[in-house]
Amino acid sequence: MSNDNKAKFAFGMVGLGTMGRNLLLNMADNGFAVTGYDKSEKMLQIFEEEGKPHNLKGFSDIEEFVDSLQSPRTIILLVPAGAIVDSVISELLPLLAKGDIIIDSGNSYFTDTSRRSIELAEKGIHFFGMGISGGEEGARFGPSMMPGGDKQAYAVVKDMLEAVSAKANGDPCVTYIGPGASGHFVKMTHNGIEYAIMQLLAEAYEILKNGLDYDNDQIQQVFENWNNGRLKSFLMEITKDVFLFKDVKTGNLLVDEIKDEAKSKGTGKWTSQVAMDIETPIPSIDAAVSTRNLSKLKKLRVELEKAYGASEKIKASADFIDDLEEAFYFAMANAYAQGMHLLWKASIEYKYELNLAEIAKIWRGGCIIRAEFLEDIYQAYKKQPDLEHLFADAGVQEKIKKSLKGTRNVVSSAINAGIATPCFTSALTYFDTLKTGRMPSNLTQAQRDFFGAHTFERIDSEGIFHADWNQKNS
Amino acid sequence: MSNDNKAKFAFGMVGLGTMGRNLLLNMADNGFAVTGYDKSEKMLQIFEEEGKPHNLKGFSDIEEFVDSLQSPRTIILLVPAGAIVDSVISELLPLLAKGDIIIDSGNSYFTDTSRRSIELAEKGIHFFGMGISGGEEGARFGPSMMPGGDKQAYAVVKDMLEAVSAKANGDPCVTYIGPGASGHFVKMTHNGIEYAIMQLLAEAYEILKNGLDYDNDQIQQVFENWNNGRLKSFLMEITKDVFLFKDVKTGNLLVDEIKDEAKSKGTGKWTSQVAMDIETPIPSIDAAVSTRNLSKLKKLRVELEKAYGASEKIKASADFIDDLEEAFYFAMANAYAQGMHLLWKASIEYKYELNLAEIAKIWRGGCIIRAEFLEDIYQAYKKQPDLEHLFADAGVQEKIKKSLKGTRNVVSSAINAGIATPCFTSALTYFDTLKTGRMPSNLTQAQRDFFGAHTFERIDSEGIFHADWNQKNS
Repeated sequence: MSNDNKAKFAFGMVGLGTMGRNLLLNMADNGFAVTGYDKSEKMLQIFEEEGKPHNLKGFSDIEEFVDSLQSPRTIILLVPAGAIVDSVISELLPLLAKGDIIIDSGNSYFTDTSRRSIELAEKGIHFFGMGISGGEEGARFGPSMMPGGDKQAYAVVKDMLEAVSAKANGDPCVTYIGPGASGHFVKMTHNGIEYAIMQLLAEAYEILKNGLDYDNDQIQQVFENWNNGRLKSFLMEITKDVFLFKDVKTGNLLVDEIKDEAKSKGTGKWTSQVAMDIETPIPSIDAAVSTRNLSKLKKLRVELEKAYGASEKIKASADFIDDLEEAFYFAMANAYAQGMHLLWKASIEYKYELNLAEIAKIWRGGCIIRAEFLEDIYQAYKKQPDLEHLFADAGVQEKIKKSLKGTRNVVSSAINAGIATPCFTSALTYFDTLKTGRMPSNLTQAQRDFFGAHTFERIDSEGIFHADWNQKNS
Repeated sequence: MSNDNKAKFAFGMVGLGTMGRNLLLNMADNGFAVTGYDKSEKMLQIFEEEGKPHNLKGFSDIEEFVDSLQSPRTIILLVPAGAIVDSVISELLPLLAKGDIIIDSGNSYFTDTSRRSIELAEKGIHFFGMGISGGEEGARFGPSMMPGGDKQAYAVVKDMLEAVSAKANGDPCVTYIGPGASGHFVKMTHNGIEYAIMQLLAEAYEILKNGLDYDNDQIQQVFENWNNGRLKSFLMEITKDVFLFKDVKTGNLLVDEIKDEAKSKGTGKWTSQVAMDIETPIPSIDAAVSTRNLSKLKKLRVELEKAYGASEKIKASADFIDDLEEAFYFAMANAYAQGMHLLWKASIEYKYELNLAEIAKIWRGGCIIRAEFLEDIYQAYKKQPDLEHLFADAGVQEKIKKSLKGTRNVVSSAINAGIATPCFTSALTYFDTLKTGRMPSNLTQAQRDFFGAHTFERIDSEGIFHADWNQKNS
């Protein structure tokens, strides 16, 4: 294959769906010579239509597409995660040369990315798993990007990624994450945190609506006020906007017309499952996952509400909304802290060499979980790069301490009224467990040794012990 | 190979560790002609020593072992789960004939069992995955057993299994579970429930010890009283005994000398992970898994207790212990109900055709989670074999309703005092969510459509919808 780089494209995209097109347009806006490939003529047409200002052209022939790229070729995949990624890679492989780069930008499961990067490394191809967050809007005007893979090869794409990424305080929302599947692992964890924050917003809505009898205007006002303070974040911002959006058909707020059965694409579930594999507790995210699954049991829920009765109103003190703001701050901080702790552990477990400060930094803009609070996280890890847990940071500690009283009031009030707040509550029981120097788990170990001879360790001496518990020696 | 059945053994065991030996001795006690195989001469020696009353002999040569068995041969494996099971099977395979039966009685992961039963069916071998619960004591004198596999082949082992099993109200604690890996799936779920109950016992201990300042004698008395009432169960029984067991070395109760870091072998984790895969919420079990992982963070916990302060005493009313009994009943019922719901869903998902009444029935004796409450569960599913959820049963409902007031008091008191009760609390937020006819998940769907164009469904019309949320139409 000729490698005349004159008039060739710097970057090529496989998959011209909305995300792929938007990212290419973003790259073109930033002055990069780009092209795309899609089997579908219709997708190509839309791409060329949208790309008119930059005179963008695409390919429906994969050989011509690959041949149109500068060497080393850099090919970004934006195709659905799973078998399609493998099939695209095997179509590309015979056309590529050593040193070429493939960047999988879908939400691939990190062990798939790990396998692919090993397989492709054997063939001399650099493989990046790169999570992209920010949705369609982000892809078009500046996403947060989490590329993991070969560090040397990163130099080829660094300038382009920094140019097209979102900026937070002037810094690009992209950084080299680490080797192997680290990019997809970090993106998965980002999504796990996202699940928890969304669940907290739903529970705050439930407290306001059913616990306090607020109408939609009052609810909107609370979210709007919060978004003007330390809870400012992308998810808070769109939530306050959701409570402004009227359904043309009924004249009601559209949110009231939407079914209460939440769907999911699996990244939250993966986060919980992997965290269990590497023995890292992230109960706020677990609760978000199980609550989405509870939402699917609509028929049963309606039946059980009839049997057991609905929730009651909360007996709220005058400053209950202030307490709720504290509870939201506290529970949100727990979601981020658990996610960061998972990254800390994964970095050891999978040798990802993650820079947690950099990760918090690139999440400050472009992505779905961007929030004021990420500045605090960034500062904490910048100060102590090896910090095991965010709650051990002095600055964060001070704010968490101040939020505890309100949090305990909100959670216990909800519990007494029967208002379901699984994610607020999990945050608090996680925190209370994490600050228990001596847990009651000695009993668990005694029981395990009692019925299963699983042995135990002692406080006062090293070693593994077993007792004959059935011999009652009291 | 000759198949002269004269003087041959009816059943053979591979693996003569404590569990394998004890089960064989149990079978011999019940009049069955049994033998065993183990590579280790030492294990054989112990086996023959313990088996002297029955003149039991074992083999260290696998060919002689297989040749000593009646046709169709029935071989039970009690070897560590994982690769060893596969390696034993491949050693056995060349020596077996069509129609022979292999029963894997370890805690194999159910997808491994599924794969093995398909592979072995192709070779004409009947493969059973059979969970056994009851520990060493149970294996010796009557375990609860959960065999899944080929229904016809079950006839060969039925009488033996019923003879050696525990009995509850005269009924054997074994039944044919279903096809494929259903036996191991049910055993895994059993262990998941076990994790949750053990965690609840630890939390009750924490409330008594740190919330109420009870000493060990008082704590022992509470567990003993509970074990004389509706909370009577194997785990409650051993817990009250743990609080009687003195350490010879220090003179203190041994439980106080044990480290508060709980270990695990993975079955609880598997239960949570699989439940997420089949979208069934089991947050009580999830909380037990994440709390075991929290216990491992000893150094961090000690550091954070210093930073944030220890928990406070509970301001307890006179009848707080009665409330705690209600809370335990409630949370325990939630653990069982979630486990049964998981089985209900798995039965549909994996076509296991589970008989939930029979499963509750065989759990009433022999196994680690045996409890008075299983009689209620058995009755509920006997009355309504297709019952989706235990809490929809009228009898259970009545008892749950009566326990709610005490439960809310205990959980909110613990929350206000900072006493960590993740599993009690998860049970309550699960229950409150499950009885919420209209959840706030409509907001989650609105958000997902807002940032990711993930679409939503409407209450008032069929179909899939998308809104242009950014166009503020208020």
